[in-house]
Amino acid sequence: MKSVLPKAVEKLSNVLSSLPGVGPKTANRLTFYLLGRSDDELQQFGQAFSTLKESVVNCSTCHIVAETDPCPICSDTSREIEKLAVVEESLDVLALEKARFSGRYHVLGGQISPINNVGPEDLAISHLLSRLEEGSIKEVILATDPSLEGEATALYIDEQVKTKQQQKLISDDVKVTRLARGLPVGGDLEYADELTLSRALEGRRSYSTD
Amino acid sequence: MKSVLPKAVEKLSNVLSSLPGVGPKTANRLTFYLLGRSDDELQQFGQAFSTLKESVVNCSTCHIVAETDPCPICSDTSREIEKLAVVEESLDVLALEKARFSGRYHVLGGQISPINNVGPEDLAISHLLSRLEEGSIKEVILATDPSLEGEATALYIDEQVKTKQQQKLISDDVKVTRLARGLPVGGDLEYADELTLSRALEGRRSYSTD
Repeated sequence: MKSVLPKAVEKLSNVLSSLPGVGPKTANRLTFYLLGRSDDELQQFGQAFSTLKESVVNCSTCHIVAETDPCPICSDTSREIEKLAVVEESLDVLALEKARFSGRYHVLGGQISPINNVGPEDLAISHLLSRLEEGSIKEVILATDPSLEGEATALYIDEQVKTKQQQKLISDDVKVTRLARGLPVGGDLEYADELTLSRALEGRRSYSTD
Repeated sequence: MKSVLPKAVEKLSNVLSSLPGVGPKTANRLTFYLLGRSDDELQQFGQAFSTLKESVVNCSTCHIVAETDPCPICSDTSREIEKLAVVEESLDVLALEKARFSGRYHVLGGQISPINNVGPEDLAISHLLSRLEEGSIKEVILATDPSLEGEATALYIDEQVKTKQQQKLISDDVKVTRLARGLPVGGDLEYADELTLSRALEGRRSYSTD
């Protein structure tokens, strides 16, 4: 039945439906949309895929996806080097950059997740600890996801830092903080889930200083 | 701010977000997903895009997207040549093939839509009429979308066929039919919109013959 379509159309449709969140119907729709684009555009599209990784490296300091090593953020001396945000993925860096975070980053490369067979040793945690041992960082901001796995990852890192502090390998001056949980800005109290609301209550602040 | 990302990553992200239904956040997510795929896979992806139109032609009989002209459907002599389904796009053919339609097709290439500057002359309607003049087709099944534009397109074609029949250019034996409107199978009466429900009432059939 499917053999009605040309092989090239089926091939692109299969390629597109292998992407996360793209089902076979969306893939078909996208393919027919692309059939209406010019040859030049399709060549450009193809090149964007095939050359994606050619000039991409991981920064050996913060593990972010970048064009240079060290990455533009690690080599920017105007940033606050005493603040380090620990995130799961390079995409999280984009989100924090938009929120105007001015420190540096450490990309873990994932979250601790026994279900997916990801343990602490699969993440850049030991490298994080050795960065802290160097002594220039004064605050570690745990910016992992506010999910079960993200919390577990944050907890694990906090424990590791405390252990190293007891061993006097990391200075006691290093503070470990966590992004605040609470109501999202622009959200609706009525629709907030009970966990978020109870966290927002716990974390309430004096109105005048907020 | 965005310059944090490598150019190749931004480029693919821009390419992806130019696709219909893909926003900038989804495009970013897909790009980072693709960064995790092998070089081989990315080459394959790229090739699927750049070679998409190389072996694709439009069937000169039914205008479907195909590898050969005439297409496999038009050259299949086992199909009922007296039935012709008129559809808007090649994708609609896939849907009718799945519903086991055994006649042939005529792909209009769109729908009459004054808002988008698409008039009857932009669609393959005059070619449809000349196919009907040949005389082997006995039933034209208007399978355009059940939308405002789809209905307008169906109405226009019906009028054209009637005019040609009055001019004796198309045989009076040619029937023009339209796909039934009614409740979708597996649907819920409670949630049906009033227009669909009123069409389902109008089109009700004797229970024993259904």
